[in-house]
Amino acid sequence: MQTVIQRRDDEIRERRFYAGRAPIGVEHYFDRTSALPTSLMRYHLEPGAEEGAHFHLEGHSGSCTPESSDELYLVVEGEVVMTADGDRTVLKRGDAAYVPAGVVHSVLNESDRPAELVLVFGPPQGSEERQR
Amino acid sequence: MQTVIQRRDDEIRERRFYAGRAPIGVEHYFDRTSALPTSLMRYHLEPGAEEGAHFHLEGHSGSCTPESSDELYLVVEGEVVMTADGDRTVLKRGDAAYVPAGVVHSVLNESDRPAELVLVFGPPQGSEERQR
Repeated sequence: MQTVIQRRDDEIRERRFYAGRAPIGVEHYFDRTSALPTSLMRYHLEPGAEEGAHFHLEGHSGSCTPESSDELYLVVEGEVVMTADGDRTVLKRGDAAYVPAGVVHSVLNESDRPAELVLVFGPPQGSEERQR
Repeated sequence: MQTVIQRRDDEIRERRFYAGRAPIGVEHYFDRTSALPTSLMRYHLEPGAEEGAHFHLEGHSGSCTPESSDELYLVVEGEVVMTADGDRTVLKRGDAAYVPAGVVHSVLNESDRPAELVLVFGPPQGSEERQR
């Protein structure tokens, strides 16, 4: 296998997530080439953009995906408000949140300038044991 | 499990990697709490800082880790020069490189301002099949 380069916005898409008030620019990195067991995305949120409340838990009817997924959010530009389990937290550049599968969460750019996030997510290891 | 918040520089360390010319500020996110099968780090490279040439391949004497690891580098601030398999590539904000296990690579901040990278890495899936 060779090293693969992806340039900013090569794979950008605009998506509206879970009834969010404004769309988010989403870039998935190495979607077709990665052999890593997690996915990596970059979110670009203009002021007002939101990833609405959702969760990822296998076997639950309200889950937005069939499989369970832990999600890690890292702010790389600007700031956002993360709401998880009803708690609001302002996350600034370099701050991160680890959201376990099943936790209802949302992200909103309440500021007046663009924000960017890096998301890493996938099925947690040992998740069956964890939930017992 | 509850949502966990990590603030910028809560876990920052300064490290010199693989004979690099200057140290790198390294923050490992959720090292003790993550159940994801990959690791996430943020690198802060002042001008001149370098992650020297190295590779990760199980069973090879020159490998810098005992296990194989694919590594994904995403630039989130400034720019760096990635050298992989002898090829130099300038990576700017939003650009990324996917470096498969076994590929010799290095990263250098040749610019006159700080650069930041996000790294996601771990054992590739299906790596035995891949190397046949």
